[in-house]
Amino acid sequence: MKIALCQLNYHIGHFDQNIQRITDAIQKAKKAGANLAVFAELAVSGYPPRDFLDFDDFITRCETAVQHIASFATGIGVILGAPVFNKTGKGKRLFNAALFLNNGKVEAVSHKALLPNYDIFDEYRYFEPGREFATIDFMGERIALTVCEDLWNVGSKPLYTFSPMDELIKQSPTLMINIAASPFHSQQAEIRRKVLTENVDRYKIPLLYVNHVGAQTELLFDGGSVAIASDGSVAGEACYFEPDMLLTDTQQLRTPNHLFQPVPQNRIGNIHDALVMGIKNYFEKLGFTKAILGLSGGIDSAVVLALAARALGPENVLGVLLPSRFSSDHSVDDALELTANLGTQHAVVSIEDAFQAFEKTLSPHFKGLPFGLAEENLQARSRAVILMALSNKFGHILLNTSNKSEAAVGYGTLYGDMSGGLSVIGDVYKTDVFALAHYINKQGIIIPTNIITKPPSAELRPDQKDSDSLPDYEILDKILCHYIEEFKGPNDLIEMGFEKTLVERVLRMVNQNEYKRHQTPPILRISQKAFGMGRRMPIVARYLS
Amino acid sequence: MKIALCQLNYHIGHFDQNIQRITDAIQKAKKAGANLAVFAELAVSGYPPRDFLDFDDFITRCETAVQHIASFATGIGVILGAPVFNKTGKGKRLFNAALFLNNGKVEAVSHKALLPNYDIFDEYRYFEPGREFATIDFMGERIALTVCEDLWNVGSKPLYTFSPMDELIKQSPTLMINIAASPFHSQQAEIRRKVLTENVDRYKIPLLYVNHVGAQTELLFDGGSVAIASDGSVAGEACYFEPDMLLTDTQQLRTPNHLFQPVPQNRIGNIHDALVMGIKNYFEKLGFTKAILGLSGGIDSAVVLALAARALGPENVLGVLLPSRFSSDHSVDDALELTANLGTQHAVVSIEDAFQAFEKTLSPHFKGLPFGLAEENLQARSRAVILMALSNKFGHILLNTSNKSEAAVGYGTLYGDMSGGLSVIGDVYKTDVFALAHYINKQGIIIPTNIITKPPSAELRPDQKDSDSLPDYEILDKILCHYIEEFKGPNDLIEMGFEKTLVERVLRMVNQNEYKRHQTPPILRISQKAFGMGRRMPIVARYLS
Repeated sequence: MKIALCQLNYHIGHFDQNIQRITDAIQKAKKAGANLAVFAELAVSGYPPRDFLDFDDFITRCETAVQHIASFATGIGVILGAPVFNKTGKGKRLFNAALFLNNGKVEAVSHKALLPNYDIFDEYRYFEPGREFATIDFMGERIALTVCEDLWNVGSKPLYTFSPMDELIKQSPTLMINIAASPFHSQQAEIRRKVLTENVDRYKIPLLYVNHVGAQTELLFDGGSVAIASDGSVAGEACYFEPDMLLTDTQQLRTPNHLFQPVPQNRIGNIHDALVMGIKNYFEKLGFTKAILGLSGGIDSAVVLALAARALGPENVLGVLLPSRFSSDHSVDDALELTANLGTQHAVVSIEDAFQAFEKTLSPHFKGLPFGLAEENLQARSRAVILMALSNKFGHILLNTSNKSEAAVGYGTLYGDMSGGLSVIGDVYKTDVFALAHYINKQGIIIPTNIITKPPSAELRPDQKDSDSLPDYEILDKILCHYIEEFKGPNDLIEMGFEKTLVERVLRMVNQNEYKRHQTPPILRISQKAFGMGRRMPIVARYLS
Repeated sequence: MKIALCQLNYHIGHFDQNIQRITDAIQKAKKAGANLAVFAELAVSGYPPRDFLDFDDFITRCETAVQHIASFATGIGVILGAPVFNKTGKGKRLFNAALFLNNGKVEAVSHKALLPNYDIFDEYRYFEPGREFATIDFMGERIALTVCEDLWNVGSKPLYTFSPMDELIKQSPTLMINIAASPFHSQQAEIRRKVLTENVDRYKIPLLYVNHVGAQTELLFDGGSVAIASDGSVAGEACYFEPDMLLTDTQQLRTPNHLFQPVPQNRIGNIHDALVMGIKNYFEKLGFTKAILGLSGGIDSAVVLALAARALGPENVLGVLLPSRFSSDHSVDDALELTANLGTQHAVVSIEDAFQAFEKTLSPHFKGLPFGLAEENLQARSRAVILMALSNKFGHILLNTSNKSEAAVGYGTLYGDMSGGLSVIGDVYKTDVFALAHYINKQGIIIPTNIITKPPSAELRPDQKDSDSLPDYEILDKILCHYIEEFKGPNDLIEMGFEKTLVERVLRMVNQNEYKRHQTPPILRISQKAFGMGRRMPIVARYLS
């Protein structure tokens, strides 16, 4: 049997477009001689539909879409994901279903049994777990059809009390098909491959795996759909970060020792591509074309400008220099050189008049008090007001340029540099921002060397440097990563060799600044634990703070 | 047996304080002759600890706290909630446990079996459901001990496939004890009473119920712990919105027909008390005393000022009038009359200089373009910059004054009037803001009549009125409530008699403005579906938009 693994970019709730893309792919698969076309989990709605799933109207539209798509399932079988009503009268309203369409109708339904409910996942919020397991016979194959997490109860500390494949294998399937919605993070491709291979090793039959591609707000789906032969070798792999169709033949999947070499994974390269896709899709799916951002002459805004230029085209990106009395000459020069290298638009708008107006207005209230945080924030907020005014006038989306290290310790101004419609590098630690800059420059200087080599500074008071108030980023980022992504506690960190007062200070900064992160833009997620929907913290708490 | 129901205000992660409050209450219960003291769900950690539960260090601190509290359980039994490690080797890391402490140690443990995972609840994110059920024998009673949701699988559409009490009842318990963390919304007290009574009706034994009181960021716990006799009559009820200790006797709980009259519930009165508690606790728990807010002369800021004055004392609340060229005279006069009535602090800071500076700075870029949204937003943002500068300089928390109707349709300026550390009335529809104003005035005019009767206006351009761009609030609020809180779709609404184009316009506004609500402050929750953690929507979507 010939099977087409259809890796598409869906748009949440955009049923007409999703249907069009699915039916186009069915026709294309048919033309290519495929007997079966396989699409991703919740393909019909896009993933994750989140609380739209609470609306009967939304589910009904999914049902209508499935009926329409089923009419294309003639002369070809179709597997795809959709939410369906739970009609058992007990438990949650919905199932997360994999549907088998054939002869113009839905011929079989598998309900997802293991519902991920950690990090960015909330599936038990909506879905009842499936409890019945049946294989599907089609064209001489017996298919064990599962949905994403159903194959993930592996390793030494299984999260669930059973594995659906342990039930399905009793029916002697000849082929596993898993439809997924598995978002990117910088280690995910390797983890995913390991989990899939572990299933093939255990059940000794081939596995076809279809993922989403494209971004949905903060979640970046990298694709990488794959066909794994019964001996665990990779028979074929779809593109990363692009829609694709992978044709495979079940006969070949039983031939051992495939010579296919999967694309080697480059961590920083993948982050780069993921972020570019994230920007591109955010704009496309919201119907915008133009971005604006503030250019400080520092590395964060330089990297964001370069990523935005690749995602949207340099002609659609406006970098605004917003100098103040504290801006160094090289800041302006470096930023101008950067925009020239990229070919992006630029403007220079001084914040001096606005800053002076605020100083004058506030002077009767501030009289006698020294220059301090309030005055620093006034500058950052004046910049945001100007950027937002330009954005409101001309229809840009403001890109936020804060990095993860800053966001973690609260080194940023609410309604100032923390503003924006999308945070591009809010999940990238400062040390990785440097690595991204080098990656961007790998075929020639785009980001001027001076931007990369000069000491980071907010330039909100004379001769200010990040290192005045923050530990070295090399050390800070390590502590942050152990704490945020590995859940290490203060004792663990001290045992690892970090200094006690530094550990306590950093953890206190992270926890005390939860209120700021609560109001930040959505952050493109590239790590296992990004701020935002994947990390949910109480603001009012007193723990390590 | 005499039992003390201990209804306390906990603080998430503040172990020392939680332990102190619990052990003080144990001593007090002992002195009052109680044989058993009962505390709420996850009392030791505070509720909800959210992703702090992912940290072993946090759980270990909970364990240490329990050991310490157990040393006070001599001559008295203690029941309280804490997270405990799952040591079965399968499933999620933790159980949500009710612990029975006696003779200085943990003598029995019940694991919560039904884990709420909807609206503001995320318990399946952390906890494995309990699957074993055992009653606890103590002083002649056989106690069926459950945790909150365990009693909620009632009604015609049960959310779970079984009820823990159906298992426990087989062991012939004489008494149900349920420890809970059941947050307030304006209908919750009635719903809760109904659910608890339904359990007593079904199992025919008395029920003791202990809830949290106090606010944790957006969640408001109203208390209302209760003792229900075996005939379903209420034998005693603890305070609402205040810590309390309710003493009850198991003998009395078997005497039918208690004459206790529960406090009648007043919807607007409860919302008022809940919001006052919410402000008070937010400030106390973050270690702040002073609030600042912008006073427009409109009803929203007037109601927030009155609530803040009650919560924090008028001397701790600074209302800032921020007039522009578009402000009407009555706005300033009305706001000044209001601050005089309340005895709050006030200041007048014109935004004219800042607004003119921005106009001048932007004029080369805006040349020839008409006054529009960008200029309106400039005013709102200039106000926010001034309020935040004062807040930064003097240590206030800025209170946000947006109402739910505005937040729903996106009628507000990001980084402008949508700023603040806490949104006080962001879950109160405009029509209920009026009702709150009347409630505040019920014993004499506090909010000047003119503020209540004049047509709502943002005053960002000449002669602007809310009604220029929004439907009547009477109609708008109804559509919003059906959509947001009852999940009605467009067809449902049209069938209810709302005009088709209006329905489509309102739903589109709600869905298109998700990006704005993503960046708003935490909103005190008083409805069944508040914006924020209880309503999770994708930003990038195209559904009814």
